[in-house]
Amino acid sequence: MRAAVLRDGRMVCRDDVPEPVPGPGQVLVGVRACGICGSDLHFAAHGAEMLALTQQMAGMPVDPGAGVDLAGDVFMGHEFAAEVIEAGPDTDTHPPGTLVTSLPVLVSATGMEPIIYSNTTIGGYAERMLLSAPLLLAIPNGLDPRHAALTEPMAVGLHAVNKSGVGRGDTALVVGCGPIGIAIIAALRNAGVENIVAADFSPKRRDLATAMGAHRVLDPAAGSPFDTVHPAVVFEAVGVPGIIDDVLRRAPVGCRVVVAGVCMQPDTVHPFFAIAKQINLQFVLGYDPDEFAESLRALADGDIDVTPLITGEVGLDRVGAAFDDLADPERHCKILVTP
Amino acid sequence: MRAAVLRDGRMVCRDDVPEPVPGPGQVLVGVRACGICGSDLHFAAHGAEMLALTQQMAGMPVDPGAGVDLAGDVFMGHEFAAEVIEAGPDTDTHPPGTLVTSLPVLVSATGMEPIIYSNTTIGGYAERMLLSAPLLLAIPNGLDPRHAALTEPMAVGLHAVNKSGVGRGDTALVVGCGPIGIAIIAALRNAGVENIVAADFSPKRRDLATAMGAHRVLDPAAGSPFDTVHPAVVFEAVGVPGIIDDVLRRAPVGCRVVVAGVCMQPDTVHPFFAIAKQINLQFVLGYDPDEFAESLRALADGDIDVTPLITGEVGLDRVGAAFDDLADPERHCKILVTP
Repeated sequence: MRAAVLRDGRMVCRDDVPEPVPGPGQVLVGVRACGICGSDLHFAAHGAEMLALTQQMAGMPVDPGAGVDLAGDVFMGHEFAAEVIEAGPDTDTHPPGTLVTSLPVLVSATGMEPIIYSNTTIGGYAERMLLSAPLLLAIPNGLDPRHAALTEPMAVGLHAVNKSGVGRGDTALVVGCGPIGIAIIAALRNAGVENIVAADFSPKRRDLATAMGAHRVLDPAAGSPFDTVHPAVVFEAVGVPGIIDDVLRRAPVGCRVVVAGVCMQPDTVHPFFAIAKQINLQFVLGYDPDEFAESLRALADGDIDVTPLITGEVGLDRVGAAFDDLADPERHCKILVTP
Repeated sequence: MRAAVLRDGRMVCRDDVPEPVPGPGQVLVGVRACGICGSDLHFAAHGAEMLALTQQMAGMPVDPGAGVDLAGDVFMGHEFAAEVIEAGPDTDTHPPGTLVTSLPVLVSATGMEPIIYSNTTIGGYAERMLLSAPLLLAIPNGLDPRHAALTEPMAVGLHAVNKSGVGRGDTALVVGCGPIGIAIIAALRNAGVENIVAADFSPKRRDLATAMGAHRVLDPAAGSPFDTVHPAVVFEAVGVPGIIDDVLRRAPVGCRVVVAGVCMQPDTVHPFFAIAKQINLQFVLGYDPDEFAESLRALADGDIDVTPLITGEVGLDRVGAAFDDLADPERHCKILVTP
């Protein structure tokens, strides 16, 4: 079957990937749509540094990069919606044809494996993949599977908002309106936060922020957002070196800063700025299973409409080009792969 | 009168400082004891950078360094206990001879001025100084004024513990057993935290940590403390470049890290470590007025005994030498100036 894989830093389309065979508790599904995530772009560009950093780090129960060999093809794609084809042995699941999504985790006889970067476990950039029967969530209310594929990134935004402790009356500033920033804006709006301010250099992304719920948008080229607003909570969704320090320098006293951008490089900060203002920095990643389910419900109930986010759709043979295209914020936010 | 002042980076003793005269709402006091704070050492060594950093920073309601001129003599000393001499005009206060302490803030006709670094407002490294009548707290229970002088640093520890959200059943790791780390240990113990682990390279400081309430002490030279304990809360009380990144690299998933050490230099961190483990970094400084009062009460009631912390006592003419001596953790923790 066909799948797009990371090979030597580029996404290439293979047509000789062996058909996956579901084991007990697993389900073979046909991928309907899979979003391209910024973390996949990061991994394609900085995979070696990321694996090296992961190995330097202690305190993790599971090493998500364990065993990934960049010299071999790497399967990716963790924002998917799919259709049930058949269950493995002794496995009860939804009937064939049911549209589903799932936490990107594959349970097998040897344990739990994240569906994120793997030489062996196929992700959503493929015609078919395996999922875990107990983790499947049927897509309700006739929700378009292309929208359901965004359950995962929208859960990332919901998680960031939940970890922030933001109150409805607080001013929330979202710095960076890429997919993560936009998901945060949508979650803030859905939570009833009454003063959501979004900042991005790109006019297109500012328009998108407005469409997804920002009450006000600012262009950082016209002056620091902190000259205009005094947020109780800042969401840093840029993820490049220097941005955390800039936020620490400008944020008001007692500010809570949620770091949702994924900066893979070493970064220089002035602890003194944060100390003098008693800032709280909450770093976030991912989501809990209940946030994932809640995110799907919000999409299916129409509380959040992700239509404006989807700026492109490509087949498996165009994933590499889509990775390149996503570098331009004026053209794209979220590109779906529809195998 | 006599006062020790910062002049060209060194503490020198002057005997020609004009006698302070209390205005309305102010009280002239005779200093009985004033602790030398690590922040004073920082300011003496890095005052220019600190003032420059403060000027770069937005979002502060008051600039604590505003108007300080390092080309002139700088008064310092904010950990003091004193004896009431006389009140200013139209000012009710405690009778002369009453032993008092106070938040280090002087209220005057022109506003509130922190008693910390100033070319004009005299601090505790002086024979006499001015305090604000409404802020005076009488030292109760016959508490030794040399102990009462430690109300302020112990309040810093209490504040760090309060901001940490630590629970009694949590494992708390205190990295660095200088005066701030020791104050944190004392506050943790007083709050009933049942597993307090302290790490310091200095055997003397490890002994002090034990005396002040640590259940276990570790020598980082013998291996990372994180190889031995898996703390829910870490208190970083070292304040040198590199320590925050090391904590982020080694801390367990979901760890809360309270940054109580005051690092004045730019510092390099790997945001990825913090993101992957969803770490919360709470930067802290100072204390609230109620924490200051609570700290005095804990000393006066005997809940916290600061006797082991006090490792030296000098007159005003020896403040400069004491600043030098404090560099050696085997010799000193807290030196009191007793004018």
